[in-house]
Amino acid sequence: MSDAVPEPEQESMTIIAFSGDLDKLWPTMILSSTAAATGMNVTVFFTFWGLFPLVREDVKHIGKDKLTRAMSQFNPPGFQRAHLSKLKFGGMGNKMMRQVASNEGLLPPEELFEMCQELDVNMWPCQMTMDLMGITPDMMVPGLGEPVGAATALQRMAKSEISLFI
Amino acid sequence: MSDAVPEPEQESMTIIAFSGDLDKLWPTMILSSTAAATGMNVTVFFTFWGLFPLVREDVKHIGKDKLTRAMSQFNPPGFQRAHLSKLKFGGMGNKMMRQVASNEGLLPPEELFEMCQELDVNMWPCQMTMDLMGITPDMMVPGLGEPVGAATALQRMAKSEISLFI
Amino acid sequence: MSDAVPEPEQESMTIIAFSGDLDKLWPTMILSSTAAATGMNVTVFFTFWGLFPLVREDVKHIGKDKLTRAMSQFNPPGFQRAHLSKLKFGGMGNKMMRQVASNEGLLPPEELFEMCQELDVNMWPCQMTMDLMGITPDMMVPGLGEPVGAATALQRMAKSEISLFI
Repeated sequence: MSDAVPEPEQESMTIIAFSGDLDKLWPTMILSSTAAATGMNVTVFFTFWGLFPLVREDVKHIGKDKLTRAMSQFNPPGFQRAHLSKLKFGGMGNKMMRQVASNEGLLPPEELFEMCQELDVNMWPCQMTMDLMGITPDMMVPGLGEPVGAATALQRMAKSEISLFI
Repeated sequence: MSDAVPEPEQESMTIIAFSGDLDKLWPTMILSSTAAATGMNVTVFFTFWGLFPLVREDVKHIGKDKLTRAMSQFNPPGFQRAHLSKLKFGGMGNKMMRQVASNEGLLPPEELFEMCQELDVNMWPCQMTMDLMGITPDMMVPGLGEPVGAATALQRMAKSEISLFI
Repeated sequence: MSDAVPEPEQESMTIIAFSGDLDKLWPTMILSSTAAATGMNVTVFFTFWGLFPLVREDVKHIGKDKLTRAMSQFNPPGFQRAHLSKLKFGGMGNKMMRQVASNEGLLPPEELFEMCQELDVNMWPCQMTMDLMGITPDMMVPGLGEPVGAATALQRMAKSEISLFI
């Protein structure tokens, strides 16, 4: 492209990943990887229940006291142990949904997440949720951005063509 | 209006209809019909659980194998059998909510859906969900757009004043 | 600032507060108060289950007949009795989450709501939900805007840099 022709400004999308449910992680990761692959600047702000998938799976205990440890038991670390929001089938729903996806060649959320990282999607952990739940940076997967607050997420959303709360 | 005065560009809204819950179908259909009635260009991308309401009610079995048939049992086809996300009242919540709406003259989601179709709202089924769940075009209600993927939905959202994930 | 330099146009955010769940009220109120504090024009449209937190806590009965009273029993009035969408811990989840927040200095949603009001966040009750559930203006907390419908919420969203459905 000639220097005289201005590059079109890059479009951007910002997703607030509030939910840690498996069936919500998929659209977040599908939209993010697809948008990034088509040239958009993508940012995902992981907050509340949505932060737990970013915790390393070998982390045994999340929480800084009895209360946060109790709450964290129902939010296991990592993408792989995320639960469906419905169709639980006595704990089997997660596995069944993953099998359905695998049969059709849809990557699991943790692999879409890695693809997103290769495509330079910004992964922003929510500082407030980390403080609330006693999650420290060393407990989280590598390749994330600096923890930020709502103000930073809002600034990014205000400049994004697409902002979604998932 | 004179030829010299440019028509204002039509505003547009794109909704990702992820949920198939009755209480989420209402806002999707109320927002879509209202926006279309006031001159907006509206697109709804039906994906994941949100795709099932588009399946014809006389379709007996959704699914291409045991696994998808099992998952589809909890996602009955059609708007009319959609469940509330809460207040289930042992299966009565759906009926109760519909009665409350009917008493006040609020149209049920399936009638708002028809109104949306008359108002030229674009109804886009998610190709990937169809592939995953074994839903074929002949199983779906008439008047839908061609099945599309996330990339197409993203393109439309990037050009829309309003994008919502419901 | 000199008169000659035009003030930058104020950015705006509109949130559709559909959920009455405690864990969704927090992001709605955190985003709204933070956005307003940083100079954005913020509007929250409270609809469906999201309307109940605006009902005064001393209101004994919501509903105009048996049906709406039955449904309202599971949507207690006020922010303080809102339930978590998950981690119910036999009814204790609400209290536990509030304690976790309090330990870390995060204000509860009802205090963030008051802060939002001081920051001139527009709080719009949904007229249709009020009609459906038999909620009258005298049953609601002070300081709200006039009840409006979906068309008004859509107009505001179309002019907002950020629109979210929570």
